[in-house]
Amino acid sequence: MKRCDTIVIGDSLIGGNGKIWSNGAGVAVCGGIIVDVGEAREIIAQWQAEQTYHLGCVLLMPGLINAHTHVPMTMMRGFADDLPLLEWLNKHIFPVEAKLTRDLVALGARLGMYEMMRTGTTSFVDSYLLEEAVLETAETMGMRCTGGEVVFAFPSPAYADWSEAEALYRRHSERFPVGGRVQVAMMPHSVYTTNDALLKACRNLADDLGLMLHIHLAESIAESNQSRELHGGMRPVPYAHAMGLLSPSSVLAHAVDLDGSDIELIAQTGAQVVHNPVSNLKLASGVARVKEMASAGISISLGTDGACSNNTLDMFETMKLAAILAKGASGVATCVSAGEALAMATCEGARIFRTPGLGELNVGAPADLIALDLSEPNMIPMFNPVSHAVYAASGKDCVMTMVDGKVLFNAQQGGFQDGQYDDTRLAMADMVDWVRQKAREA
Amino acid sequence: MKRCDTIVIGDSLIGGNGKIWSNGAGVAVCGGIIVDVGEAREIIAQWQAEQTYHLGCVLLMPGLINAHTHVPMTMMRGFADDLPLLEWLNKHIFPVEAKLTRDLVALGARLGMYEMMRTGTTSFVDSYLLEEAVLETAETMGMRCTGGEVVFAFPSPAYADWSEAEALYRRHSERFPVGGRVQVAMMPHSVYTTNDALLKACRNLADDLGLMLHIHLAESIAESNQSRELHGGMRPVPYAHAMGLLSPSSVLAHAVDLDGSDIELIAQTGAQVVHNPVSNLKLASGVARVKEMASAGISISLGTDGACSNNTLDMFETMKLAAILAKGASGVATCVSAGEALAMATCEGARIFRTPGLGELNVGAPADLIALDLSEPNMIPMFNPVSHAVYAASGKDCVMTMVDGKVLFNAQQGGFQDGQYDDTRLAMADMVDWVRQKAREA
Repeated sequence: MKRCDTIVIGDSLIGGNGKIWSNGAGVAVCGGIIVDVGEAREIIAQWQAEQTYHLGCVLLMPGLINAHTHVPMTMMRGFADDLPLLEWLNKHIFPVEAKLTRDLVALGARLGMYEMMRTGTTSFVDSYLLEEAVLETAETMGMRCTGGEVVFAFPSPAYADWSEAEALYRRHSERFPVGGRVQVAMMPHSVYTTNDALLKACRNLADDLGLMLHIHLAESIAESNQSRELHGGMRPVPYAHAMGLLSPSSVLAHAVDLDGSDIELIAQTGAQVVHNPVSNLKLASGVARVKEMASAGISISLGTDGACSNNTLDMFETMKLAAILAKGASGVATCVSAGEALAMATCEGARIFRTPGLGELNVGAPADLIALDLSEPNMIPMFNPVSHAVYAASGKDCVMTMVDGKVLFNAQQGGFQDGQYDDTRLAMADMVDWVRQKAREA
Repeated sequence: MKRCDTIVIGDSLIGGNGKIWSNGAGVAVCGGIIVDVGEAREIIAQWQAEQTYHLGCVLLMPGLINAHTHVPMTMMRGFADDLPLLEWLNKHIFPVEAKLTRDLVALGARLGMYEMMRTGTTSFVDSYLLEEAVLETAETMGMRCTGGEVVFAFPSPAYADWSEAEALYRRHSERFPVGGRVQVAMMPHSVYTTNDALLKACRNLADDLGLMLHIHLAESIAESNQSRELHGGMRPVPYAHAMGLLSPSSVLAHAVDLDGSDIELIAQTGAQVVHNPVSNLKLASGVARVKEMASAGISISLGTDGACSNNTLDMFETMKLAAILAKGASGVATCVSAGEALAMATCEGARIFRTPGLGELNVGAPADLIALDLSEPNMIPMFNPVSHAVYAASGKDCVMTMVDGKVLFNAQQGGFQDGQYDDTRLAMADMVDWVRQKAREA
């Protein structure tokens, strides 16, 4: 018998390279790494574990990767809906954000991380104000996170100017190094809230520190119009390219309003795209050209965006919408299959994390996995586990979430394992009046 | 103290005409009818009930109404995805359906009804083969159902020709009368699977028996092209009108491929439309023109369609997609507000049921209500219960479902109240091989 830390056993399992087990399967985990994947009886026969989870009628699969979000925005979930973008931002969101403190950002981040671990997300890419509080919260709560302070050309609660922002990034990159469970990435906000010098400075600092660079780009027609006006007729994608922002270490969030040459340029430079279908619809930004981007060979991952423009962080919902919206928008029912949508929500998002093996349940990969309850009516009958994961499951079917070998949520053992969920819940109830008051004061 | 059968108490409640209670609220129910709605302390002070449910931290709201589905198709959930429509139908769905028996239809219907009561749907409009088994199952299981045997111009397992179909409808309309909890409606399948004489016969029989008439119409461009070829250049909507099908007692499912004059004609005749956004995207049928239909004054309700083309019966998912897809497709973020989406999923669908008061929690209405768990992270914080119901909730947040005053599902008391869910689950597991075999034989 070989020794390991943990064994997890379920009825079915989605392994790497599309391999499916349907008659009892499990994983063995040691030091946060998957050391075996296979038939349940073989895992049990070969490994002796400190702790074994016999989860019964569940589907084991890789945890989902939310490649674009702003987790502290859960504190404003449902605060302002159904409004034109500028009114939503200027009258509701920005006045509240201007009053944020580190403690409030940490509180919103806690709630967002509970929601993610409850709904089957194990990794997320985040940018926000006072992001240090998000990175620290991820460290404490056990989530896998790539995060960065959002960089604007104007002062923010975290810095007065670029030199302060740069110092902050240098500090973060020592404290949260690349490839770690919690790591930093460079996050200029967008081309319309920055300027030439700032974008070039961000690119240089990212290169200097070896960081990924993540930016909102081409989210709406309005952004394209503004870019053409300000940048000598250049649309957002060629402008970002002129600033040196497009490369294999660049991640472009949204990428909705693209023309054919934008798509070609992204493909040529090897930049990645994060598709945020729920937020793009809710804010009326439009429908990203997923079929064309995929045909051009662009890596497409998925994000929920912040809870204000969604209003959940449920990556199962996003994964299903990515698959069906691509079909409905293109008129091609074979466009974005279940397997392709699952890859977007796992392996493709994993590229941002520079963590070998992340996104699939294979030997040597980080033990980031979830279990879906197969006894719920929406999961019956089961012809194809991948179809169920993409088209039939809700995040709420997740009954167990493990990150880095540690169980963070287990419905069979009291839910959230850190025992502090109720404190967060009560603290968040007090936020309702605070948010309303700050918006009124504006 | 007044006496009633049941009191249900929660933290918040969405009542009729947009009235919200946020500090403890409840309903009193007598004989399946709501006899009081109001503040928790007033309900408790004024009513003495046989049974009181103190549900705690929940949002009480009307049960959702699925206005277009085929519940027995749950038995083929996930059996065939990501295929072109004709290949999907001819190679996978039709060969299995040709071998159906009453028992199998009843089994699929049971599973579908468990899924609906689990995910907050209390009423549904159904059409399928051997529909009598669906109507009987709804009667036994306590769901509210308007259903009808699907009518084709070719023989089906339930009838050899129209005269047999007519006799079957006359029998059903006595056994499941209009306005009852389980009632019959006339269900010609579509304009492309029938003919002039059959559609006119359906209309006449519906008028004779006083039934609603429900038909798939204008689901795809292919249907429009075929209609123009076969019917002297007429598109599906004017052709259906020429057959006498459009009137205030008509319900048109899908209505995706409409031009401006189609919309005008539907509005003029007072016919209702059922929007099926998930199915329309998954089958690549396209995006219905909800903004234009709503502006023309057409009543729009919502449906999931069958589980094969969705693959769930979760009306919360459908309600959210209806709201955000209308925004994304129109480019107008104020299009289909949360309140409008909720009305589509409740009061608008209720029109099909000819049951006074259905769809809102008001005194005198049927006691069809659900409770959403407000302690889940995705439901925190709560600024606006209607926003949460539409944008943040999943069907899986439903913890209690009552139809006609009877509790069908209660998460706090063992889940499904009829105690027969496990039998259905095990029987359904045996269906997997049967379905695969029937498809192979074809």
